[in-house]
Amino acid sequence: MLNKRKIINDPVYGFISIYSDLLYDLVEHPYFQRLRRIKQLGLADMVYPGALHTRFHHALGAMHLMGQALKVLQEKGHLIWEPELEAAQIAILLHDLGHGPFSHVLESVMLPGVPHESITLVMMKELNRQMNGRLDMAIQMFEGTYPRRFFHQMISSQLDMDRMDYLNRDSFYTGVIEGSIGADRLIKMLDISKDQLVVEEKGLLSIENFLHARRLMYWQVYLHKTLLSAQAMLTQILYRARELTENGEKLFATPDFARFLKNRFSLTDFDASTDLLESFNGLDDNDVWASVKGWRTHSDPVLSKLSEMLLNRNLFKINFYDSPPEPELLDQLREQLLHSGISESEVPYFLITGETTNWAYAKEQDPIRVKMKNGDLLDIADASDIPTIEALTKIVRKYYVCWGKNVSLRG
Amino acid sequence: MLNKRKIINDPVYGFISIYSDLLYDLVEHPYFQRLRRIKQLGLADMVYPGALHTRFHHALGAMHLMGQALKVLQEKGHLIWEPELEAAQIAILLHDLGHGPFSHVLESVMLPGVPHESITLVMMKELNRQMNGRLDMAIQMFEGTYPRRFFHQMISSQLDMDRMDYLNRDSFYTGVIEGSIGADRLIKMLDISKDQLVVEEKGLLSIENFLHARRLMYWQVYLHKTLLSAQAMLTQILYRARELTENGEKLFATPDFARFLKNRFSLTDFDASTDLLESFNGLDDNDVWASVKGWRTHSDPVLSKLSEMLLNRNLFKINFYDSPPEPELLDQLREQLLHSGISESEVPYFLITGETTNWAYAKEQDPIRVKMKNGDLLDIADASDIPTIEALTKIVRKYYVCWGKNVSLRG
Amino acid sequence: MLNKRKIINDPVYGFISIYSDLLYDLVEHPYFQRLRRIKQLGLADMVYPGALHTRFHHALGAMHLMGQALKVLQEKGHLIWEPELEAAQIAILLHDLGHGPFSHVLESVMLPGVPHESITLVMMKELNRQMNGRLDMAIQMFEGTYPRRFFHQMISSQLDMDRMDYLNRDSFYTGVIEGSIGADRLIKMLDISKDQLVVEEKGLLSIENFLHARRLMYWQVYLHKTLLSAQAMLTQILYRARELTENGEKLFATPDFARFLKNRFSLTDFDASTDLLESFNGLDDNDVWASVKGWRTHSDPVLSKLSEMLLNRNLFKINFYDSPPEPELLDQLREQLLHSGISESEVPYFLITGETTNWAYAKEQDPIRVKMKNGDLLDIADASDIPTIEALTKIVRKYYVCWGKNVSLRG
Amino acid sequence: MLNKRKIINDPVYGFISIYSDLLYDLVEHPYFQRLRRIKQLGLADMVYPGALHTRFHHALGAMHLMGQALKVLQEKGHLIWEPELEAAQIAILLHDLGHGPFSHVLESVMLPGVPHESITLVMMKELNRQMNGRLDMAIQMFEGTYPRRFFHQMISSQLDMDRMDYLNRDSFYTGVIEGSIGADRLIKMLDISKDQLVVEEKGLLSIENFLHARRLMYWQVYLHKTLLSAQAMLTQILYRARELTENGEKLFATPDFARFLKNRFSLTDFDASTDLLESFNGLDDNDVWASVKGWRTHSDPVLSKLSEMLLNRNLFKINFYDSPPEPELLDQLREQLLHSGISESEVPYFLITGETTNWAYAKEQDPIRVKMKNGDLLDIADASDIPTIEALTKIVRKYYVCWGKNVSLRG
Repeated sequence: MLNKRKIINDPVYGFISIYSDLLYDLVEHPYFQRLRRIKQLGLADMVYPGALHTRFHHALGAMHLMGQALKVLQEKGHLIWEPELEAAQIAILLHDLGHGPFSHVLESVMLPGVPHESITLVMMKELNRQMNGRLDMAIQMFEGTYPRRFFHQMISSQLDMDRMDYLNRDSFYTGVIEGSIGADRLIKMLDISKDQLVVEEKGLLSIENFLHARRLMYWQVYLHKTLLSAQAMLTQILYRARELTENGEKLFATPDFARFLKNRFSLTDFDASTDLLESFNGLDDNDVWASVKGWRTHSDPVLSKLSEMLLNRNLFKINFYDSPPEPELLDQLREQLLHSGISESEVPYFLITGETTNWAYAKEQDPIRVKMKNGDLLDIADASDIPTIEALTKIVRKYYVCWGKNVSLRG
Repeated sequence: MLNKRKIINDPVYGFISIYSDLLYDLVEHPYFQRLRRIKQLGLADMVYPGALHTRFHHALGAMHLMGQALKVLQEKGHLIWEPELEAAQIAILLHDLGHGPFSHVLESVMLPGVPHESITLVMMKELNRQMNGRLDMAIQMFEGTYPRRFFHQMISSQLDMDRMDYLNRDSFYTGVIEGSIGADRLIKMLDISKDQLVVEEKGLLSIENFLHARRLMYWQVYLHKTLLSAQAMLTQILYRARELTENGEKLFATPDFARFLKNRFSLTDFDASTDLLESFNGLDDNDVWASVKGWRTHSDPVLSKLSEMLLNRNLFKINFYDSPPEPELLDQLREQLLHSGISESEVPYFLITGETTNWAYAKEQDPIRVKMKNGDLLDIADASDIPTIEALTKIVRKYYVCWGKNVSLRG
Repeated sequence: MLNKRKIINDPVYGFISIYSDLLYDLVEHPYFQRLRRIKQLGLADMVYPGALHTRFHHALGAMHLMGQALKVLQEKGHLIWEPELEAAQIAILLHDLGHGPFSHVLESVMLPGVPHESITLVMMKELNRQMNGRLDMAIQMFEGTYPRRFFHQMISSQLDMDRMDYLNRDSFYTGVIEGSIGADRLIKMLDISKDQLVVEEKGLLSIENFLHARRLMYWQVYLHKTLLSAQAMLTQILYRARELTENGEKLFATPDFARFLKNRFSLTDFDASTDLLESFNGLDDNDVWASVKGWRTHSDPVLSKLSEMLLNRNLFKINFYDSPPEPELLDQLREQLLHSGISESEVPYFLITGETTNWAYAKEQDPIRVKMKNGDLLDIADASDIPTIEALTKIVRKYYVCWGKNVSLRG
Repeated sequence: MLNKRKIINDPVYGFISIYSDLLYDLVEHPYFQRLRRIKQLGLADMVYPGALHTRFHHALGAMHLMGQALKVLQEKGHLIWEPELEAAQIAILLHDLGHGPFSHVLESVMLPGVPHESITLVMMKELNRQMNGRLDMAIQMFEGTYPRRFFHQMISSQLDMDRMDYLNRDSFYTGVIEGSIGADRLIKMLDISKDQLVVEEKGLLSIENFLHARRLMYWQVYLHKTLLSAQAMLTQILYRARELTENGEKLFATPDFARFLKNRFSLTDFDASTDLLESFNGLDDNDVWASVKGWRTHSDPVLSKLSEMLLNRNLFKINFYDSPPEPELLDQLREQLLHSGISESEVPYFLITGETTNWAYAKEQDPIRVKMKNGDLLDIADASDIPTIEALTKIVRKYYVCWGKNVSLRG
């Protein structure tokens, strides 16, 4: 059909084109349309009000970059067939299907032990079934079983199209322009050597910049203190809601969300029932917000207080530490909370500890390879003329304490 | 307090600063925080996936432009006191408080006869009460009773900070860059003459560009066919939901939303009860989406079908006409719908007609005045050297028919 | 050769790729390298200090847009051969070869009756000779003799790649962002119908915006008063230099420039001698500035005064009028100049009149055709829903007087 | 005078405002207007065709940033008087006055032992004389004798407004967007502590990014191989021209340039004669290019060959090495050159060795201080949580060999 709308405006890249009918049909599918209602960065708009972009837009962007990158590789003389080109774009388009709303927050409470990658795969297989096997190659690439390895690396590695798009897009929409990575140039520097995705030597500095930008985005955005605090609060809200539900309390919730509040599902449940998949596909940011809003007036003071605070952006105080917080500090905060009318059993909802890590370059796991002019492949850390990349291989760990300052539960 | 966070990242302007504690407290107020959950452009992300920016960000942006514009006027020698500067920023910050989710759609079904401007005023007055009269001057400026008229013109006129921000911001987030207006230069060209907001002669072309860009944004974004279709569908969904509710059917809905579904309120109800104001303040985009999602599985086939279609972006077909559509055309479409199993009484839910207008420059109502180098004030249409502005004073009206093609209600 | 550098950074488009060896060799040719030393906008940096971009960069940009546009046409199903793709890119790459420095200024004084298009053609033919006929098709396209007409329209028409790049680029480098045209979208809207370049109906508003932007750029940049004044001064300087030279005075000048100062060449002289072509190819902005700087200390007071004024941006005053200036006004200015020590015969160097026109849309000459959804081709002015385009077909003429205020020639 | 044009378009910052009449008069002065004709990056447009921005625009940009930064400091409660604000803007506006064309190239050949900073100071003092001492405070700030030290640090340090603008501007015009530094945010993070310019702790990552960006810009732009090659060639051209001149050969040159070719001046010569200063002020890029163009046809084969090669961008080949090049390599290249008809004495013009260093952060010399939340001042390298900054303190040195491959001097 020629009148399918195949060009999509994108403030980041100008326009995104959808190159085939199959890609278009996937975009139109309810599984993919659901991603319109799931923000890429969850609660980050509490810190960066522009950070409202969705997984829908990100997935389209990653597909766009995949198309660009494969064209660059073709121009460098690598044979890439049309079916491969389409399959790689499908794989990256669908790579985030299995994300629920507020990804890690919701996963940790509602679906512990069911990683979103696994749900993605269940959904891709269901789509493949509906489309009579036309996603076979895409699924192979996604899983890493397709013979030409570099395709999988373009979908999932330290230099994949997923990262390139999300760093680019998150930097754009948060307004943290120091996080911009120059995806255009990075892509032009990609090459294939020994069936691996590599970077040309002249792209060395661009890759260094990419890794620094990534580290910066972690501290400045993904691990921003205020965001961690908001996430901690939402986590506590969900735990409390589940606890109350399991204790038989009646709680307002949207229908699909209620199902996940009441039950504890495992991955096999998803395999067993497409009906559960449909419920999962019914979940998005709106369910969480609508429910939290409904809970503002619930009779349980913990649930209602936390819900109201989160809605009005009245967030917990949070401090970072280089080592685990001293017991004395925690005792002191606990005392304060008890004094303000919070009972012993409620304290854990208002005093949270945690840790967070920033690992800019996971050298051992999945090195980024640079093709030197003499043809050698070097790990980027070895190719650089100064030890900054080496420094980025260090995992930086921070500990935090997060608590409800001046919270008063009872009158 | 010095540690209040007073700088906000904005992809459009870089940074937005909040200049006073009072402004900061207003931003923190639940009334204003609610705007985080109301998208500026409602359903427009169905066409432009980046168009997810909120009324919260827009209001901050308009406040920013107000600050910039008043500084420009000060530099041109006009005396503007600090309290006026703050009051004008407050007025523009709060000017959209009274918007509900999916503004005109929801208003037309749920609150006919209660314009959002009136609710804004009720909310501003309530805030003023809470803040012991500190918003008096801002309210005067908003209502147009403050003696210096130009303040009101900066808040509400064809050249106000509201429009400048929304055109700028909508163009940015949709990616329709032809709609960019050069707000920076426009603001530098503002002046005051005879207590009126005017534009310097050398800004003439910038204003022409502004009006052309506005016209373009109307057709390209605000009145985009696909958006009108989605809005028509949401309108029908809400009418159906209300109809069913009034007929005693049980419908899932979030608590605050349920109150508005069940009752028909007038403006006096808002004045009478701050409790109603609180319910209104509980409404945002999430309620609508969560409810529509809940209705997908409702037993009423009209409600469930329409809800599912909207969620999956399976939209009605829509055509534009220069004159009201011929009865023959409508009859023909009606026939098709009846054939596909839709009953006579259900047809209106699947066949909608309407009209829409684009009035780029409302010359008579509220002229834009240009201060010529000789001091004269001219209407912009008279100051231009070609009759393009005159052409923009024409109201362009289009008629549309929107219908569910290939919809089948029964098996 | 694989190690040819084929990617060029461009702040406007990100990167420009050179697609073939022949294109690369043309870029490397001294005829094309000369364009590095000729600013696209001549003296415009006196008003917009960023407007320093060269004809070299513009020509590369136009080649880039040509490549993009032809790919769009291919994707729409039009058959375009590789040799055609290359030829069209060559033609647009070379379309400005024949420009001298400060194009119209220098042409009017030094090469009256020798339009730059003609010199371009002479140079293209010389290149074709050197390259053994490989530019045959490009030259046909440039001249309009290639059978498929739309290629010529892409090189030279109201919607050609030349304009798209220069409006885009000039807007970018001047910082006059209201002049931005959305070249990306325009190009995606191009199509071919009946062998003509046309625009799809859905691109109508983008074309309207393009024409408005073009009009704005004319007044705001190309015909900016201060720029016209600077151009008038440089014109007078060159006339004086030539006059003195013809009177036998010795004047500093760079060698190639001296040849053009001393002689009056016609187009046939260029055909007759490649040696003259080499001299022409030796001319660029540096010759003019270096000579003007040398003339600051010349004994002729007119030449030295004007040269010094231009160098230090001490420009003539200039006023615009809607009708030819009254003789009384000119008499009065002449009196002032005589009083300040300028002799009767020198007055014409310090008092200049002229006229300038802005013709946003030359409808009759070369209409822009819109392909309506029903297949009809309409002139854009007829396709628009309001008469703004019609208004743009009006030629706006302004008259100016430009004079040296407070110039004192003697003591 | 109110009608002085005080707003200047800038593609980088939008608009630059000139805040006082004195600043405006300095901008209008011939010393400053000359900077219009000196490109910031000399020959870099041979690699990045957009890199044509001038020292004029850079100086205005640095003045703009100074104004912004001082306002930020005022908002943080630091008292800064109007005269200080103006003086600091003057100092940064004029800080590059003493640059000649192609700065380091020309300096090394023509003015060895006369650093441009010294000439800047001579010129500032001459301006101060002409302006009756109104630049006294600005000169103190520039020299570092003004009591409040942070002003000097804002003019000249590792975090000065000079660097911020040039990195920003060079990144913008080259199109190397990975070099973007987020000047907006950096400036908002500045503070004063103990009379020193410091950065707030929350700006730590922005500073890290700034240093990485700076390192990248050095390798990618300032020390780009092709640029070094072009600079080496221009250096050899100037040496040859001077050698020929000193041997009594007649050479075409623009008048002011000829004076510097013929004589060897020291700094005291500048102090002694404002006439020499006027000659220096007569020098700009046009003199060099015009002369090089004139030399294309000179009878000396070395001068003409090198000049023609540079003009047509037919550049020397260049290789980088981590250690000084082996004598064998140089011998081999020398042999090649002798074989191609270059005489022993001419070889040094066609075979050049050199070294270049990139020192991203000069920790010991001039540390960047971070003000921690507890009030401590830490060196940035100590404040960072990973040792990347420490890595940047390493001086990276590269050696290069640059030679005319396939050059043939005689027929």
